[in-house]
Amino acid sequence: MEHTSFVVVDLLGTLAFAVSGAVAARQRHLDVFGVFAVAYVAACGGGIIRDLCLGSLPPVGMADWRYVACVAAVSAATIVAQPLLDRLERPIVFFDSLGLGFFAVVGAHKSLALGSNVEVALVLGTISGVGGGVLRDLLVNRVPVILEKEIYALAALAGASIQVIGALNGHSTFITPWVAAAVCLAIRSLAVRYSWSLPRT
Amino acid sequence: MEHTSFVVVDLLGTLAFAVSGAVAARQRHLDVFGVFAVAYVAACGGGIIRDLCLGSLPPVGMADWRYVACVAAVSAATIVAQPLLDRLERPIVFFDSLGLGFFAVVGAHKSLALGSNVEVALVLGTISGVGGGVLRDLLVNRVPVILEKEIYALAALAGASIQVIGALNGHSTFITPWVAAAVCLAIRSLAVRYSWSLPRT
Amino acid sequence: MEHTSFVVVDLLGTLAFAVSGAVAARQRHLDVFGVFAVAYVAACGGGIIRDLCLGSLPPVGMADWRYVACVAAVSAATIVAQPLLDRLERPIVFFDSLGLGFFAVVGAHKSLALGSNVEVALVLGTISGVGGGVLRDLLVNRVPVILEKEIYALAALAGASIQVIGALNGHSTFITPWVAAAVCLAIRSLAVRYSWSLPRT
Repeated sequence: MEHTSFVVVDLLGTLAFAVSGAVAARQRHLDVFGVFAVAYVAACGGGIIRDLCLGSLPPVGMADWRYVACVAAVSAATIVAQPLLDRLERPIVFFDSLGLGFFAVVGAHKSLALGSNVEVALVLGTISGVGGGVLRDLLVNRVPVILEKEIYALAALAGASIQVIGALNGHSTFITPWVAAAVCLAIRSLAVRYSWSLPRT
Repeated sequence: MEHTSFVVVDLLGTLAFAVSGAVAARQRHLDVFGVFAVAYVAACGGGIIRDLCLGSLPPVGMADWRYVACVAAVSAATIVAQPLLDRLERPIVFFDSLGLGFFAVVGAHKSLALGSNVEVALVLGTISGVGGGVLRDLLVNRVPVILEKEIYALAALAGASIQVIGALNGHSTFITPWVAAAVCLAIRSLAVRYSWSLPRT
Repeated sequence: MEHTSFVVVDLLGTLAFAVSGAVAARQRHLDVFGVFAVAYVAACGGGIIRDLCLGSLPPVGMADWRYVACVAAVSAATIVAQPLLDRLERPIVFFDSLGLGFFAVVGAHKSLALGSNVEVALVLGTISGVGGGVLRDLLVNRVPVILEKEIYALAALAGASIQVIGALNGHSTFITPWVAAAVCLAIRSLAVRYSWSLPRT
């Protein structure tokens, strides 16, 4: 887990989800601690579920001060820089999509690194990606992003799959995580932009 | 856990809850991946909570491909066979009741098999039974089935109790699971049919 | 964990949260088992999350019969003594505030006792304090108490911090837990009474 690539990817995912959580909290006009709390749940929730399922305890989102510091910095910056964020049309969707790919990659990688099989890596990669967003939305009472009409969890599964395929071929660390996260972001962004969706039932 | 009876009981519970989840997702007109996701949460959510609490990691619903395959097959079948299911008056309630008993039995059995005491077996049996349904309903924004007026969690507790009593008397494997699941299903079905309910407060 | 102070503090927190859950369930007119279920989730939910994150399995709220017995007794008493509770203006808020401090202290103490670092103790102390209340409110479909305008999670963090500071200075057991819980209760009560709140965003 401690390979530099994954530390960077994990940090970027944490940053992106923390912004999505802080913006969601601001839209509900929570107080400053509420902004921090929702940002923390969005940024670390998926990773905590992942670590619980892998038995990697206590979860890194609690045990490593850098995550909490990162969330605190992002919360403060979001409050100050709100006018900037308001220029984005849908800031929650944008930062959520960014984090989705990063966390899908980290989830898949960490599962394999701790000895789990390919299936666990795919399932936990996907859950790591979508978990923080679902918890964030439950907490601020938004419709969970996973139920939106555009492709969402499937993009995370695509990112996790590329990471797993790379790892099985011995290319897990340098290029693969970035390709996997980029593919996930691309799928999700295009789906939102062009309203791609799977057939409804 | 690997005694044939429990594998069959666990599989049947997974099938039944997957149908309940897939139908609930279809009623919300989710896309095909959404149907799979809700079916997976309903079918494996209770077991994942159970395995987290028992420290049996990674949870079997993630580590064993048969669960995911079962959920995928059920999701596809539900989408194709919708007209058939529509003939049932309340398909979610019916399949949910079926799964409730199977999972209460498996939860109680697995707790004892992994060395927990009788109380853990009763609590986790009940939580295994009701967990998937509660998560499913939170996800699709239905009123949680556990808050419905008819007897629900108490039926799961009855099933778990019979399994525990059987195990304490050395009869855990052949007849007991089926009797326990049948009693749970009977209590729940009769409660729905005749609007049995505990005194309200 | 087995020092008498913490057993008493933990028991008091369980009692207080069980009352808050039972009252919330009664306001939704759930049946008698529903009252027990919501009281159990409120009283033991935070501790179960704590024990999952610490790998202390099975969670004490399931493994120790005294918790279930305590919740059952409180549920029965709440149903009988409803007229008494109705005299309190906001009984859920009052008992929730009581339990908040007790559980923040126990969560911080148990984290340190099991070898976690200071940050885990602060995060898990806070989560132990607020967890049961958040789950209770999700279950009965109230607005989560943590999103209310008055100071809430910050009070739990204050209690956990005092306990951690005391423990670092070798005074973890006799006076510290009571001071920490009292400070938490005082902050929360004053915040509710005088509508203290952090700046909104």
